[in-house]
Amino acid sequence: MDYTQIDIYLANHLDNSIQELRDFCKIPTISAQKLNLQEGAQAVGKMLEKRGFEIEIHQTAGAPIVFAHRKGKSDKTLLFYNHYDVQPPEPLELWESPAFEPEIRGGKLYARGVSDDKGHITSRLFAIDAILDADGDLPCNVKFIIEGEEETSSANIPPFVKANLEKLAADACIWEFGSINHQGTPLQILGLRGICYVELSVETASIDTHSGTGGTIFPNAAWRLVWALNSLKGVDENVLIPGFYDNCIPPTQRDWDLFALNPDPAEDYKQRFGVKHFLKGTRGGTELIIQEVFEPSCTICGLDSGYQGPGSKTVLPARASAKVDFRLIPNQTPEEIQEKLRSHLNNQGFEDVNIDYLGGEAPGRTDPDDPFVQIVVKAAEDAYGEPMLIVPMIGGSGPNHVFLEELNLPIATAGIGYPGTKAHAPNENVVIDHYLKGAKHITRILKEFAES
Amino acid sequence: MDYTQIDIYLANHLDNSIQELRDFCKIPTISAQKLNLQEGAQAVGKMLEKRGFEIEIHQTAGAPIVFAHRKGKSDKTLLFYNHYDVQPPEPLELWESPAFEPEIRGGKLYARGVSDDKGHITSRLFAIDAILDADGDLPCNVKFIIEGEEETSSANIPPFVKANLEKLAADACIWEFGSINHQGTPLQILGLRGICYVELSVETASIDTHSGTGGTIFPNAAWRLVWALNSLKGVDENVLIPGFYDNCIPPTQRDWDLFALNPDPAEDYKQRFGVKHFLKGTRGGTELIIQEVFEPSCTICGLDSGYQGPGSKTVLPARASAKVDFRLIPNQTPEEIQEKLRSHLNNQGFEDVNIDYLGGEAPGRTDPDDPFVQIVVKAAEDAYGEPMLIVPMIGGSGPNHVFLEELNLPIATAGIGYPGTKAHAPNENVVIDHYLKGAKHITRILKEFAES
Repeated sequence: MDYTQIDIYLANHLDNSIQELRDFCKIPTISAQKLNLQEGAQAVGKMLEKRGFEIEIHQTAGAPIVFAHRKGKSDKTLLFYNHYDVQPPEPLELWESPAFEPEIRGGKLYARGVSDDKGHITSRLFAIDAILDADGDLPCNVKFIIEGEEETSSANIPPFVKANLEKLAADACIWEFGSINHQGTPLQILGLRGICYVELSVETASIDTHSGTGGTIFPNAAWRLVWALNSLKGVDENVLIPGFYDNCIPPTQRDWDLFALNPDPAEDYKQRFGVKHFLKGTRGGTELIIQEVFEPSCTICGLDSGYQGPGSKTVLPARASAKVDFRLIPNQTPEEIQEKLRSHLNNQGFEDVNIDYLGGEAPGRTDPDDPFVQIVVKAAEDAYGEPMLIVPMIGGSGPNHVFLEELNLPIATAGIGYPGTKAHAPNENVVIDHYLKGAKHITRILKEFAES
Repeated sequence: MDYTQIDIYLANHLDNSIQELRDFCKIPTISAQKLNLQEGAQAVGKMLEKRGFEIEIHQTAGAPIVFAHRKGKSDKTLLFYNHYDVQPPEPLELWESPAFEPEIRGGKLYARGVSDDKGHITSRLFAIDAILDADGDLPCNVKFIIEGEEETSSANIPPFVKANLEKLAADACIWEFGSINHQGTPLQILGLRGICYVELSVETASIDTHSGTGGTIFPNAAWRLVWALNSLKGVDENVLIPGFYDNCIPPTQRDWDLFALNPDPAEDYKQRFGVKHFLKGTRGGTELIIQEVFEPSCTICGLDSGYQGPGSKTVLPARASAKVDFRLIPNQTPEEIQEKLRSHLNNQGFEDVNIDYLGGEAPGRTDPDDPFVQIVVKAAEDAYGEPMLIVPMIGGSGPNHVFLEELNLPIATAGIGYPGTKAHAPNENVVIDHYLKGAKHITRILKEFAES
């Protein structure tokens, strides 16, 4: 196929697309804080309408879900899944430019959400613009489902998908993100761990008391929390909740073989995050990759109790809480983990520790040998100069399970991320050159898929 | 002795003294945050100068120490120890009126520091005003030492006292506070636990990372902290640091006998703090009092790590810290506990847990049978209608040790506190009637002591 006109369009209109992304990133659509989610959905709807899509904005118990579709030449249908919500920007003091005032420095665009996931949305629209400019029409039917609660575990996606199987019907799905690795090779990511995110909290008194009075006689919420947390995982990283590992399916030989083709991430992780060593004494290589993505985790994401200001305050806290994130591998489920956690805490004498379920998703995988996967892998050559490297599974999570199971779609990834993109951290950014390559890749995927 | 004129003065000038206290409380002299400490010292100096005291303001490595003295009729010298610094006001949202805008409601004056310790300072000056009005002179020499770091463990008091033994020489000392119990009986408090206040902190990476990537391969600062804390104390409340209890001297039979005269605090604690039960299954009575004051403690005062906002954020924290307060009984010392803590953490594999020493004080006691104690106990009868109840020791701390050991002073308490005073908590307050009684008591102490 001839992509000359498409590529000229992309080269000439990059600045316009980046400007559209900047405007989008100015809206602080923070799902954890329920901020600007209606505004985010409206902005997404307008961008899609501009490209001739028919739009539906579905209200849910949480953030609205935007559905869009436009017919194309072939009978095939490609579904894009994206999200317009972003992570909270804190800690604010570590941003070099304000999180919601996008700024270009050194060929990169910095803003909260610029990579995760707003840049993915606009780069896909940019690819569609280029095809419409060259061909006047789309090569296949295209659907978008763009939600606003991905960063808080997509609670409303599974019921929405289940209730709209016909509307969402498609032949294949491109997932919300895509990335190159630290060597510049584009990655084909085919599996996501599940997640079960909870807040544990304890209240031992009606008010904070003086540590001089209460230290040896009053229950201390912070101590109760520490002891309860300690009962969840040992210093050897083994999760101590009975039955936690029961449903885990270990990686297959094919997984090991595919991962063995991936570069060793050890040095990159050490440099990027300032980590000095890895858990369980693992030094790197395929062993490190498998440990990263094929083991379930129990992560403390936050601790909050009592006085945290400068200097000392002799207070005995009445309240303490922790955010805890379990990443799950096939075939664990968030419902199962919640139940096992409650039983375990009760059995350990921590009936006083309350569990708030903040969201969860089951793990899910696509077969690396699916024909659609092969199309996307090969389509990368034009944009990146090499095909994609297959990654059977990554450590992150998303609602792919319901698309896999309910819509029976193969799911592939393609996008604009890179290892320094700092999703979920201060100074989130995209490299503008990666943005262009990502859009180019999408144009190839759409056209090659349409004719497959 | 005839106190008629003194008592008329106190009754007629109460409003002026309360106004002086309100003005004093408007200055947020927060030692933990190093706020307004020079201003606090200047304000104290001016109040003392107004009463004809000679003032010295001594700069230290921390907050200035105010020394004041005025000669009186007899050769005897009484030393008052007080402090002008206050606890941080957080959590601000729980104050019914702003912490530094003193407000009278229902016969009580509310403000941060109104009880601990600014009200004690102004009530003592009020007593001095009354005596000067009646007698034109003080009955004995009076000295004040008023510091600005009591709430952060008085680091500069021991060296200052040791370097100024002659300046501070006296026959007896009245401590910074005094209180009635929940039955209205004034308490003679004769001992303070020591304290060793530390901040434990861990850093495992240079930036927070994504929990999806790092959960099973990157060290997590919050987990390291939880495990290190868990190694310090068991759920049975037993401190697990080797040698922690080695130097503890248990209460004597005389201590048990004196405490047995004190009312059972159990119901009062339950009502006041919303505590449902006491540690170690203790139900109340002398056993509860002894457990409160004659056992050393290990209290988590604060926990801080990662994301603490609303909802979920899937972050793996690079940093975590805890404030930990050990209360010590004779003859433990803060230096000893620090060393034992460091050794213990190292032996448990927590070399990565940093210890910041934020302050400490040794425990100290005055003999209940000291003649000065008896004068103060008896002098209460005029103000409260009954003598003081002897409390050999309380759970709180202060720098009494250096006054006891270096200046060889018996130390007694007299003051304006009560069980609902909420020192260190939101809505700190004093009952104005208690304030008047406290001042009345001080006039009796000064005159009876001068002639003893």
